[in-house]
Order: sequence, then C-alpha cells, then structure tokens
Amino acid sequence: MSNTNSQNFSVGIIMGSKSDLPVMQDAADILKEFGISYEITVVSAHRTPERMFTYAKEAHSRGLKIIIAGAGGAAHLPGMVASITTLPVIGVPVKSSNSIDGWDSILSILQMPNGIPVATVALNAAKNAGLLAAQILATADDALTAKMQAYKDELRRKVEESAESMSN
Amino acid sequence: MSNTNSQNFSVGIIMGSKSDLPVMQDAADILKEFGISYEITVVSAHRTPERMFTYAKEAHSRGLKIIIAGAGGAAHLPGMVASITTLPVIGVPVKSSNSIDGWDSILSILQMPNGIPVATVALNAAKNAGLLAAQILATADDALTAKMQAYKDELRRKVEESAESMSN
Amino acid sequence: MSNTNSQNFSVGIIMGSKSDLPVMQDAADILKEFGISYEITVVSAHRTPERMFTYAKEAHSRGLKIIIAGAGGAAHLPGMVASITTLPVIGVPVKSSNSIDGWDSILSILQMPNGIPVATVALNAAKNAGLLAAQILATADDALTAKMQAYKDELRRKVEESAESMSN
Amino acid sequence: MSNTNSQNFSVGIIMGSKSDLPVMQDAADILKEFGISYEITVVSAHRTPERMFTYAKEAHSRGLKIIIAGAGGAAHLPGMVASITTLPVIGVPVKSSNSIDGWDSILSILQMPNGIPVATVALNAAKNAGLLAAQILATADDALTAKMQAYKDELRRKVEESAESMSN
Amino acid sequence: MSNTNSQNFSVGIIMGSKSDLPVMQDAADILKEFGISYEITVVSAHRTPERMFTYAKEAHSRGLKIIIAGAGGAAHLPGMVASITTLPVIGVPVKSSNSIDGWDSILSILQMPNGIPVATVALNAAKNAGLLAAQILATADDALTAKMQAYKDELRRKVEESAESMSN
Amino acid sequence: MSNTNSQNFSVGIIMGSKSDLPVMQDAADILKEFGISYEITVVSAHRTPERMFTYAKEAHSRGLKIIIAGAGGAAHLPGMVASITTLPVIGVPVKSSNSIDGWDSILSILQMPNGIPVATVALNAAKNAGLLAAQILATADDALTAKMQAYKDELRRKVEESAESMSN
Amino acid sequence: MSNTNSQNFSVGIIMGSKSDLPVMQDAADILKEFGISYEITVVSAHRTPERMFTYAKEAHSRGLKIIIAGAGGAAHLPGMVASITTLPVIGVPVKSSNSIDGWDSILSILQMPNGIPVATVALNAAKNAGLLAAQILATADDALTAKMQAYKDELRRKVEESAESMSN
Amino acid sequence: MSNTNSQNFSVGIIMGSKSDLPVMQDAADILKEFGISYEITVVSAHRTPERMFTYAKEAHSRGLKIIIAGAGGAAHLPGMVASITTLPVIGVPVKSSNSIDGWDSILSILQMPNGIPVATVALNAAKNAGLLAAQILATADDALTAKMQAYKDELRRKVEESAESMSN
Repeated sequence: MSNTNSQNFSVGIIMGSKSDLPVMQDAADILKEFGISYEITVVSAHRTPERMFTYAKEAHSRGLKIIIAGAGGAAHLPGMVASITTLPVIGVPVKSSNSIDGWDSILSILQMPNGIPVATVALNAAKNAGLLAAQILATADDALTAKMQAYKDELRRKVEESAESMSN
Repeated sequence: MSNTNSQNFSVGIIMGSKSDLPVMQDAADILKEFGISYEITVVSAHRTPERMFTYAKEAHSRGLKIIIAGAGGAAHLPGMVASITTLPVIGVPVKSSNSIDGWDSILSILQMPNGIPVATVALNAAKNAGLLAAQILATADDALTAKMQAYKDELRRKVEESAESMSN
Repeated sequence: MSNTNSQNFSVGIIMGSKSDLPVMQDAADILKEFGISYEITVVSAHRTPERMFTYAKEAHSRGLKIIIAGAGGAAHLPGMVASITTLPVIGVPVKSSNSIDGWDSILSILQMPNGIPVATVALNAAKNAGLLAAQILATADDALTAKMQAYKDELRRKVEESAESMSN
Repeated sequence: MSNTNSQNFSVGIIMGSKSDLPVMQDAADILKEFGISYEITVVSAHRTPERMFTYAKEAHSRGLKIIIAGAGGAAHLPGMVASITTLPVIGVPVKSSNSIDGWDSILSILQMPNGIPVATVALNAAKNAGLLAAQILATADDALTAKMQAYKDELRRKVEESAESMSN
Repeated sequence: MSNTNSQNFSVGIIMGSKSDLPVMQDAADILKEFGISYEITVVSAHRTPERMFTYAKEAHSRGLKIIIAGAGGAAHLPGMVASITTLPVIGVPVKSSNSIDGWDSILSILQMPNGIPVATVALNAAKNAGLLAAQILATADDALTAKMQAYKDELRRKVEESAESMSN
Repeated sequence: MSNTNSQNFSVGIIMGSKSDLPVMQDAADILKEFGISYEITVVSAHRTPERMFTYAKEAHSRGLKIIIAGAGGAAHLPGMVASITTLPVIGVPVKSSNSIDGWDSILSILQMPNGIPVATVALNAAKNAGLLAAQILATADDALTAKMQAYKDELRRKVEESAESMSN
Repeated sequence: MSNTNSQNFSVGIIMGSKSDLPVMQDAADILKEFGISYEITVVSAHRTPERMFTYAKEAHSRGLKIIIAGAGGAAHLPGMVASITTLPVIGVPVKSSNSIDGWDSILSILQMPNGIPVATVALNAAKNAGLLAAQILATADDALTAKMQAYKDELRRKVEESAESMSN
Repeated sequence: MSNTNSQNFSVGIIMGSKSDLPVMQDAADILKEFGISYEITVVSAHRTPERMFTYAKEAHSRGLKIIIAGAGGAAHLPGMVASITTLPVIGVPVKSSNSIDGWDSILSILQMPNGIPVATVALNAAKNAGLLAAQILATADDALTAKMQAYKDELRRKVEESAESMSN
C-alpha cells in the first residue's frame, strides 16, 4: 500500500485502526498526486504501544520526514508519537464510531501541552494532512512549491467554473 | 513522599506534571487515611515517554495493584499506562491551566476504545480516585470493607449534623 | 441470563431499562470470556427506587464484589448504587434515545461528589466495564492477571495482522 | 430555619450540601414573602441515601405539598426524590464548586426519563423555584393568585422606574 | 382535539407549530389517562404574538390552571406566556428540525430570569409535562394523588416484569 | 439619555435590564459618533411584556428605522420585538450574571424560526450592533457610507500604527 | 440565476461552495417574492481569495446595497467580505458536511471583533437572511414595508388556520 | 522586534491585534532559542484586509518559509493567509477577551475546508507553534534536528528532576 519500492519514504501515514482507512486514504491519495513517497499502516497507541514506540523511535533514522497520524475517540496516537520523535507530526481527528460527534477526537489531539506540538487539521480532514505534509516538504523543494501553486490555481479554477455554471 | 518504608506499595499515584500535585495529593491523603501504602511521583506521557513506558511495564512486577494517574489538557497518561499494564488504572482529569474548562481532560481520559478501560472519576476528584482504589482493594480485604463502611457512616453523620445545625 | 447456577456471582450487571440490554450485553460477554460469574438484571433508580435500594444494600452480603451499572439521560443508577454499597461501582453511560448525544449520560454518571466514586467508562463502553471488572478481580487473582495479559496480547496480534494485510 | 411553628409545612426545601445554602436561601425568602410555610434542611442523595428515601417517602403524609431540591455536579437529589414521592418536585441546578460550568448540574436534573418529571428551573435560580411553588399552590388558592399578580405588577413597576431614570 | 365538551379545561397545551404535535400529543394522552380536561392548540410567539398575548392574558379567567407550552429552536413561547400569566407554565423543549441538537430549545426555555419561572422538562418530554401537570393538580386533589401513586406502582411493576423476563 | 431633542429618532436601543447598560452603552456611543439619533431605554420582555408589545408595535409609526435589542440568559427580547415590528431588529447577546458563559444568550437570540429574522452580533458586541445600524441606514445615505469608509480607514490606520510600534 | 436583466442588483447572494446552493436558494426565493433584484454566485474566501476581494471591493460601486454570504465549517466568507466592504453583510451559517453540528459555522461567522459586524442569522436560515435584506431595504422604501407587513399577516393567518384545523 | 538584521527571515509571526502579543511572544522566544530568524508584526484580517493580502502574497518571495498566525474570536487570519500563500501556516487560537472560552478561536482556525490546511496548535500554545516551525525547518536541517532532540532531552530531564524532588 505504499506507492514506491524504495525503502525511504518521506511520509509515514499511520492510523489507530484499519477502520480509519476510508478517512486516512485521502492523505495517501493527495501525496501520490504530489509525487511524494509514503508508507501507510496501522499503529495503535492503545493496543500496540510497543509497536507505536518503535515506529516513532525509528521514524527519523528510517528516513521519514513527516508523520501523519489519525485516530478517533480518546485519540492518543498523534500526541504520543510526537512525544517520541523529533519529526513534525500531523494529527487527523477521526469521527469514528466510538467518538462523541468528534469532540473527543479533536480535543485529545489538539490540546497538547507546551513542548510537544501536534499540527492538528480539521475533523476527518486527511486530505489537508497530506497537503500540509506537501507544504512542509516544499519549504526545501521549489518544484513542490510550484506544484502546490498549481494545485491552488486548480482549486480557484473549479470555483470559477462553478460560478460560471450558475450564471447561465 | 510515600507513606511506608516498604518496597511494595499497593497503589502508584502518578501525574503528568508536578503542578498537578495540589489536586493529586487528595488521593494520597485518603489512601493514608485508609492505611493503604502508596508511592507518588511525576510521570509525563509526553515529556518522559520511556519513563512512562517503564513505569507501566514494571508496575505489576513491582507489586503495585492499582495505578492512579492524573493529567490535564490532552491527557494521555492514564490511557497510555492502561495500554501497557494489566492493572486497573484510575484516571483523574485535572483542570490544569492549559485545559479548556476541563472538557479536554475529561474526554481524552474517558473515551478510551474497547479493550483498554480507564476508570475515570470526576474533574479534579483525586479523593474519589483514592476511595475507588480502596474499594478495589477491599474486594479481597474484609477489614478494608469495614473501614469503607465506617467512612460512609461518617459522611452520613456529617450531613445529619449539618441538617441539625440548620434546624436550630 | 446468568452464566452459572451458583448463588454467588462475582459481578452484578444492572441497567435502568431493558432497552439498554443491547449495549450492556457486551459486559456480560466479556465476563463470560474471562470465566467470571455474573448476574444481569434490570434495576431502575427512578421507576424502582426500593428495588434499587435493596439491590445495592444486599449486594455485598450476597457475595457480589463489583457492580456494573448502565443508564442513559439523567443517569442516576450508578451513582445511587454507589451511595448505598461499599462495593466498587462501574458506570456505563448509555446513549439511549432520551439522551442528548450522550452528554447527559456521561456527566450525570461521572461528576460524582467527593466521597462517592463511580468508575466511569466511555459512552456505551460496556465491554470496557467488563474488562475493568476483570482487572479489579485480578488484583487478587494471578490466573485472571494471566488471562488479562493474554487478552492484551491478542489485541496486539490483531492489529499486527491488520497492519500486515495493509502492506500486501 | 422554618418560618412557622406549625408542624405542617407546605413546601420542603432540601439541598445536597449545606454549601448550597447561599443559593437555596432565595427559595425560602420568596416563600416567606408570599406567606407560604416551609421547612429547609440538608438531604444528600449520595451521603444520606436512607435519609433521602425517608424524606421523600414521608413527605406527602407529613403534609408537604411541594418539594424544592437543589444540588450540583452529578445532581441526583431532585430526580431521586421525584422517583419516590407523588408530590411535584422542583429542581434547582446549583453551580457548585465541583460542577463543570453548571452543565452537569443542569443535565442530571433536567433529563429525567418518561414517567418521573422534575420541574427544572434555571441554574442557581432558587428564587424562581420558590415562585413556581407559589404558582402551584395558587392553582387552588385565589388569595395566592392575587399576591402573584401583585408580585408581577411590582416587577413591572421596577422596570418602568428604571426606564424613567434613564430618560432623565 | 379537546377531550371534553365543557368550556372549562384544567390544562392548556400549546405549541409553536403544528409540526410539534407528534411530540406534544404525549402530554394530551397522559392527561386523558388521568381524567384531566385539556385543550390543545397552536400558538406561535413569533408568528402570532397577539394571539399568544391574548391566550396567556385570558388563561386564568377562562379557568385554566396550568399551561403546557412546547417549542423548538429559539423557543420563546413558554417564557413569554409565563411573563403574562400568573399560572404555572410547564415548558417542553422540542428538538425540532431548526434546532441545534436541542441545545437552543433547552437553554431558551430553561434559563429564565429571576421573577418569571418556567417549569422545564427534558427534551421532547411532553409526557412528563402532562405528569407534572397532574402532580400539580393533585396538590389539591386526593383522588388524583391516588391515581399518581397507582401510575408509579405500574411503572414499578413493568420494570419488575422486565427483570423477571431476563432471569428466565 | 437620547442625543437629540427631536421626537424622531432613527434607532431605538432597548435592553432587558438596566444592568445591561454597561454593555449596551457602546451601541449608543458609536451611533453618536456617526451622528445618528437614537433613544435608549429598558424594555423587559418578561417583566414588562405589554410595554415591550407597545414599544415594538409603535416603533415604525414613531419613526424608528432600526431596533437594537440586548438581553442575556433566556433572551427573548430581540426575537419578540422582531415578531411584532416590520423593522430590522439587531440582537445583542449579553453575557449577564444569569447566563451560562453566554451560550443561552446567543442561542435564544440567534436561532429564530423561518419568517422572523434577528440580525445577531457577537456576545456583548453592542458596538457592532451600532455599526450595523449605521451600515443599514447608509444603504440610503451616501454621506453615512462615506463616514463608514472613514471609520474603516481609521481602524486600518490604527493597526498599521500598532505594527509600526512593534517594528521599532 | 439572477431574476432581472438589469446590471444593478440590490442584493448579492454569495456562497463558499456550489454545494451550499440548496440552503442558499431560500434567500433568492424570498427576495424574488418581495420583488427585490439579486444576483447569486459562488465566491470562496479560501479557494478564490482574490475573487472574494474583488467582489467585496466592487460591491458598493456596482450598486449592491446588501450582501448575503453563506458558508460552513471555518466559515470566513461573511466576515472577510464585511472587512472589505462598507455594505451590511448578512451571514448564513451553513451546516455543511465538513461542519461539526454547525457549531463551527455559527461561531466563525457570529463572533466578529469590534469594528466589523456581520448580521448573523440562524443555522441554515437563508430564508431569514433574505427577509432581513428586505427589512433593511424597507427602511427607505414604504412599499416594501407594506409588503413585509403583509408577509407577517400571512404568517399569522397560517398559524390561525393551523389552530382551527386542530380544533375540529 | 525581529532578532536579526537580515532581510530574510525564516518565520513570519503575525497576530490579529497587538493585544495578542503576550501570548504570541512565546513563539518568538522559542524560535530565538533555536536560532531561527523571524519577524513579528500585527496583521489584521478584518481591519487590514489588504495588508493581510499583501503579506500573504509576498511571504514566499520575501524568503519566509513558514507563517505563524494567532487570532481570537472569529479568527480568520490563519485560514485567510493559508488561502493566499503556498507556505505552511501554523494557527494559534488565542483566548482573547472577545472569545467564548476559546471555542470560537479554535473552531474558526481548525475547521478549514479541504484544499486549504492550517496546522492548528492548542489554545494559546504559541510556544508549540514555534516548536512546530522548528520541526518543519528541521526536516531539511540536521543541526536543527539535533537541537530539537536536545530540547526534548531537557524536557525529560526536568520531569526527572521534578520526580526526584518529590521522592525526598
């Protein structure tokens, strides 16, 4: 489920449960669109704490530059990974079946204490997590910045098209 | 700050930051009142993840029977400890300075996924965490059950006294 | 609906209404899986206050060690039972039809005053209530501790399997 | 602390803790203003469940016509009293120190299941509880209705006075 | 839609919109069960302010003893009626289509200022509004008190039946 | 407390209680700054329903063009006035002492049903209510539009000044 | 999709996405009913910031008198347009698919800072936005005031009809 | 108020009002600690929309790599800047005086639509915004990664010290 054969991926996408995949796939899709290599897997803070620990501990040495972590309910995965790695961690609050309208997912990812940031995106917004990862990599990659500009231009173009369709 | 010289404590009280001590001390005080041995220390899920891991991993073999964990904001300590140990974990949501009226503390402790329970008590209710620990130990200790009954009798007596004082 | 013929059950599972059974059955199922004896019945704080009173009053002498109580809306059953018995009471907030997204169920079970704890689990998390009961009994039962460790190992194994399935 | 020597009071004012008295006194004051006899005392659902049970059970035969019950946090007193007596019960959510901005007090009093109503008033609005009691008694007492009309007239007059003071 | 031909009804049931009828009918049904005469109609605070004004103004002289008012969203009907009449007003927050999960309905009915109480019941709990009306009338009607006791006995009996069915 | 001797004011500022004046004065001040005539008084929906009715009913014929209404808690004044007059009504949710963090004030003003709009501004934002009134009058008054543009320019200038002070 | 061929429309209806059209169409329909000219199009603050800027900048000179702006989630369109134009801006919080029960839409439109008002209506209440626009225009148009009175009369008539249908 | 004389800063810190400076200064302080060049100024989305537009438009060409934007209430600054630039934008919800307990600040920054991410940190957590900026720059700067590791080690050391102080 990774989009290259290389051992070195730029972004690691992890989620607390395979049931989060329909949401988290959006992150993978947008990274693919931007030509950014990624790996995607299940890492549960609560059911596989040691796997989580190892994943976070080795992330930097394995060549990852960014981790995108999605979880729902008492969502500890993004914050715990951020506590272990020095890499930037992007948190995706998932409105899973055991979540109270998403409030628990949001607050337990967003409200990290001073010292350990998690870059939180909107509820279920895995696509934005992927775009944010691309923006981060683009800070040292002009070609990626150009692609990001093109992406924004396309967003604009679609709205203009939409507007035109309404004026007919 | 533990109340016995023995190596074997029954209850481990941990908190994410020393600033949580004014709240968490209530748990220690009530355990002392019930004659239950405890240790009390700072273990931060986010700033000392390995210490947290080790603490939780060794808790059972060190003789602890129950862990009381307090934390505020994105409060991951109780849930992460619960993910590692088989011991019952009692979570105390702390309304710390970086908490949004306590909602984040409550939801990130309470809303654990199936498989990994945390016995959550009310916001800042470390005293109740201590009492719950006593009740748990009392399930195998008749003397402790008797003390618990006496404690409840005393609660009742104080209300009755209060009521009497109002009728004069 | 109890899983043994013995008079002495370890855990009493009660709920405010038979309509809570689909949620509360999970507690029974997990206790059965752990070989812990239980009884399960309807006790309404509001419609059968005397039955509730008697149930809580006699629970200890009848040999129960833990009570799991589930209720929704203005959910008074767990707290009221806890006010009468010395046994540990595990509260399950049920998102019943008369609940406001579960907030009322959670707050009226969780926010108990000092002196009367209720060990609250996540919304609808009766499975976790059962597991917590097992952890409590395991504090005095090494065989149960071993089963709990095995249960956690199995949780881990399933996530690893899940992860493997994604990497193919 | 009751305003007549008679044994028969019309209204019983109870509260979960003496610390609720500053709020609940308003109910007593307004009843006194309307010349309605009352008693006022502490009855804790959680610390004196039997006293609560007895109070509610005997309320009708002791001649009480209405019970006003105030409590904070997981506020079970109004609902539990309502479950035992046939009298109308007026619930006052108190924003006590252990309450989360009053939300827990409100929801655990208001959200009673079908069959067991509690007439809930605004947060800390013990004065309105007293007025509601007067309105209820006035349904069978024309003199009281006249007093209520006079009270409303006085409310109006004060606003008009206020308005006049602003136009000068 | 009133259950007697008499001009004098004891209870007036009003609602902000005919679309609230499926909820509010429960109040009528329970009053009928208790043999209490009622009228039921649509009175909108916002679309028919004068009708509302007249209804509230004449309620007492028309012989009504209690008004039950249901409304959703910015629900002003119960509070405005209470501001005009001296009768006790029971407010039913309706979770109508234009309500935000019922929070607006609840808060705009419950949070009345000092001087003007509304006896608020749970979200959509028109049945409890009817029962509360019966309890209020029962304060001056022993036969009604007896019926209320019988109603409570029946609630109890049904739970016991439910419990029995689970033990087989 | 009105800023002209003329009988014809453009804007009527009303509030539920004189205690709302410290908040509502901001509306008057900004109108004065824009040279718009106004009157300001207390009109309580709940304590002076007839005064409120008359005020709203006569507003248009008295020459008012806009009503600004502020209230807190179960804040019915803006919506009720809007139900009676055809004038645009601007609602100011006031975080008064009997409000739950302002949520009740906001929801009971904002969530008006279809057919009866209230132009709601932010919590305590009486200044914005005054500005909105000015913008409304400016739709038919070019001089006022010019003043509004100057006001916005001044806002801009102050931020630029602020920015400059930081760069030194 | 505008209802006249003229270049000068009185009201501009804009929305953040074409998916908001089913909600926002209500504003257009009511304006049409009142004979008020309007244009309707898509302007996204986030995807077409320059288009938004230009739209707001030119609105006044193009002859628009009022802007109605609807958006969901982090809804910046109404506030940003208000920051650029001197025209009154009516904000419609849309409960779009990416909104948390509408709370984000409401708060990010309503809670504008002092200096920049947005006239916010209820969640999804585009009809009320249209009515508010009509009321604003009516402040300088007596014929429109008459139509508004007729509209209110019709609202009243329908409720009375509804009431009559219930009394048969 | 920038920490170097160079024209090229890596990070731009902006805030909606100078009153946000006590919160936002933490971002500057941590960047300084990490030796990262920054500029800090006031840019208001609502009071200086053109300045905001220009700032965001020129940010990349001026050499900025990351923008940290703080704002309170209806906080549009981070999202609007993100809509214009391709740079990663870190949003700091500020609990300013016009905010409702911070909920409006959080939701209007976090809940951005697909296509336009804002990396949101906890309420008032400007320090974490600075750290996140450092982590982002560290993805292409090994020396910075080493500093980040040292920072985390120091966090750990302080907790251990804290723990030691409690054990004496």
